[in-house]
Amino acid sequence: MKKPVFDFVDKSNMSLLTDFYELTMCQGYFENRRTETATFDLFIRRLPSNRSYFVFAGLEQALLFLQSIRFTHEQIDYLRTRALSEGFLDYVEDFRFTGEVWAVPEGTVVFPNEPLIRVTAPVIEAQIVETFLLNTVNLQTMIATKASRVVCAARSKPVVEFGLRRTQGTDAAMKAARCSYLAGCSGTSNVLAGMVYDIPVFGTMAHSYVMFFDSEIDAFRAFARVFPDTSTLLIDTYDDLAGAENAAIVAKELESTGHHLDAVRLDSGDLAEISKKVRATLDRRGLKYVKIFASGDLDEYKLEKLVGDGAPIDAFGVGTRMSTSSDRPYVDVVYKLSGKVEEDAFVPAMKLSRGKVTLPGRKHIFRQKDRMNQYKCDVIGFEEESIEGTHLLFKVMENGKIVADLPTLHEIRETALCNMVELPSQYKKIRNSPRYPVHLSLRLTQATRQVTSMLRRTKRVR
Amino acid sequence: MKKPVFDFVDKSNMSLLTDFYELTMCQGYFENRRTETATFDLFIRRLPSNRSYFVFAGLEQALLFLQSIRFTHEQIDYLRTRALSEGFLDYVEDFRFTGEVWAVPEGTVVFPNEPLIRVTAPVIEAQIVETFLLNTVNLQTMIATKASRVVCAARSKPVVEFGLRRTQGTDAAMKAARCSYLAGCSGTSNVLAGMVYDIPVFGTMAHSYVMFFDSEIDAFRAFARVFPDTSTLLIDTYDDLAGAENAAIVAKELESTGHHLDAVRLDSGDLAEISKKVRATLDRRGLKYVKIFASGDLDEYKLEKLVGDGAPIDAFGVGTRMSTSSDRPYVDVVYKLSGKVEEDAFVPAMKLSRGKVTLPGRKHIFRQKDRMNQYKCDVIGFEEESIEGTHLLFKVMENGKIVADLPTLHEIRETALCNMVELPSQYKKIRNSPRYPVHLSLRLTQATRQVTSMLRRTKRVR
Repeated sequence: MKKPVFDFVDKSNMSLLTDFYELTMCQGYFENRRTETATFDLFIRRLPSNRSYFVFAGLEQALLFLQSIRFTHEQIDYLRTRALSEGFLDYVEDFRFTGEVWAVPEGTVVFPNEPLIRVTAPVIEAQIVETFLLNTVNLQTMIATKASRVVCAARSKPVVEFGLRRTQGTDAAMKAARCSYLAGCSGTSNVLAGMVYDIPVFGTMAHSYVMFFDSEIDAFRAFARVFPDTSTLLIDTYDDLAGAENAAIVAKELESTGHHLDAVRLDSGDLAEISKKVRATLDRRGLKYVKIFASGDLDEYKLEKLVGDGAPIDAFGVGTRMSTSSDRPYVDVVYKLSGKVEEDAFVPAMKLSRGKVTLPGRKHIFRQKDRMNQYKCDVIGFEEESIEGTHLLFKVMENGKIVADLPTLHEIRETALCNMVELPSQYKKIRNSPRYPVHLSLRLTQATRQVTSMLRRTKRVR
Repeated sequence: MKKPVFDFVDKSNMSLLTDFYELTMCQGYFENRRTETATFDLFIRRLPSNRSYFVFAGLEQALLFLQSIRFTHEQIDYLRTRALSEGFLDYVEDFRFTGEVWAVPEGTVVFPNEPLIRVTAPVIEAQIVETFLLNTVNLQTMIATKASRVVCAARSKPVVEFGLRRTQGTDAAMKAARCSYLAGCSGTSNVLAGMVYDIPVFGTMAHSYVMFFDSEIDAFRAFARVFPDTSTLLIDTYDDLAGAENAAIVAKELESTGHHLDAVRLDSGDLAEISKKVRATLDRRGLKYVKIFASGDLDEYKLEKLVGDGAPIDAFGVGTRMSTSSDRPYVDVVYKLSGKVEEDAFVPAMKLSRGKVTLPGRKHIFRQKDRMNQYKCDVIGFEEESIEGTHLLFKVMENGKIVADLPTLHEIRETALCNMVELPSQYKKIRNSPRYPVHLSLRLTQATRQVTSMLRRTKRVR
């Protein structure tokens, strides 16, 4: 197993990053001496409009959390002030997660209702870890999914993640860089993410740099002097076309000393129109090699339009809208009891709340492909069923210890890119994509009906 | 000054939580020996639709960051691999922020274009800190603003922040709790935020708890035994009305032992309709004192409707949509050069990019009130101008040290609540609120015109 990287999961502190009801429920179990083994599924309820798949991410942080969760004396002293019982707090003091976890590998394309992480443990252990698992899978799957759409829309043009200044906080900043890279972006502007996750970092200058000098061309010259072969000059601080002329002058000056301007950047206005004019200006000066980099409120919808219109843009910086998944800033990820062991037999459980029905039992996902190795459909069935297709769930933790080799981020990126190649193109459309078929096995369908009617009979529900 | 609380701002690591271009620009300044003092304004460009004001938040974390920013050897070794110059890296090794900062107090109601944080420092110092300041003000102001809307919509009914499982990561989880409390929420489900920020924490049970027992009423009894006077029973796992009957039975059993059920919770379905039926069921059993708590995909729009319809709900749990500000998951916060000192004279600077023009010079905000002590309008003018109204900017840092007493979160909450009282009610409407008047002083208007024409003349721009 690789050495876990530094992360914002500070083990001693994240244990209390939980909803209070996890603790009151656990005290409820503890005081009622309920220690049965329970199984929970983490899954996503539904696809938002304009999404046709998810790219699963966040497992590494989830597993590191499970492996290291502990409660400190300081934390227990705090919990004491919240009226939890001494007996339960004694239990919490020695708390370890000792369960078994099956999960889909990060980078896998997944769909609603598919169990992504399956936790089996004594009920208190399985319950108390819920909130953190949801939080990190929510954020990371949301970003990986959004970034995958942006990368698709850019066709083969590179996309750099630029969202740091407007991500929802520091952890989101780190995970936006991690998960957009995982989904196919070429790098990030976030230096700490570059260092921690070994992701390429990009960036050159902001408008304030240009404004600081007496004139735009002074700013360009001062920058090119320091970075003679790696400069991207930002040309829209005052006027983009005049800026392109200034950049061309500096590019020619660099040529005369044996250097080459790398690119110009546009960050405002009608990028399709302006990029054409800027390209013409540069070409006229014999600067065909100078690339055009575009940024400014971009997302997959704008990229699709720009690329479709043939805008001569070589690479994109995509920030806020990708790194906050602004058209849908969360996914409907939930963590639900699917059964428990009673007298050595597994008893399935279901929730019947209006619009929120869950699937009972310990399940697997079976992915079926066509002869071209393209995904055809998924089947959700019981783990003991023998159904055609590749299994998507693997055992990753046993007795509270990680037992799988955690892949590096670069390996996860490979997984994601391979998955995207095998996902038929109709599901990769930015809008109006058809629904990918996910079936329930016959046995799961029957069991769901049986459990429902049993619950309606025995639990005084309609 | 109070002791800064534990926070996710880990001083030694956040320094590199920055866009790479901050470092390349700073190397550009360094290698060109540009050390002039510069002034930057942090402000928000525009109001999103359905927002009529912002509640400013995030200053405490910004100041703690400025006071503690350092670069470690490990970080500098990493930067060396990114091709930064040895001269610049030597400078970075001893980097301290030594500047002066003026800011609006957290909890203040503010509007677009108003300088919220004004940083004056040698240009490298002022530039290198940009990204973190934007990140934390973006997140916190966004949440405080959204939560303020939710609190307004709830009228005087308590709102508890329930977003932890779907906030965009761990830092967002902490700041969602901090900033929703600051804006008037009554507490949070987030235990760590409760501990760190001294916020009331709430929560009792989830659906899985009910599902774990053989029947719903067994689950309710088991819980009520452990929490005989503080139980909120979740009644919609199988069927909300049958759940209300079960809760009533348990409430009566509690009464017989001298205890009282606190509340029932609804988390799905048509809350207006169901809450009326549940209220009737409880009342029929003589349980008028049992409160109804509602949650499930709530936001200010749904709360306004529920409260307007007279739904008999006593308190709300509001999660995902508030804690991600889902209808607008970022604010257009920017950090722009407004001028620099040259030969002891302050020279104003402006950006003229299409749609992104900035205001030059060192500015103040003057807030004017009417005779009823209600906000009438704001005027943005130069700091040396004598304009009617209360100053909103205060000096909070001098020579890189915090010089203001940082208020506690409870004090900031007072500020926010007082501000909301003084904001006229038409600006607190959830939809279709008029635009609050923010004027530029005559001198600022004139100066903006002069600087624009000077820039057009001297910088080769149109």
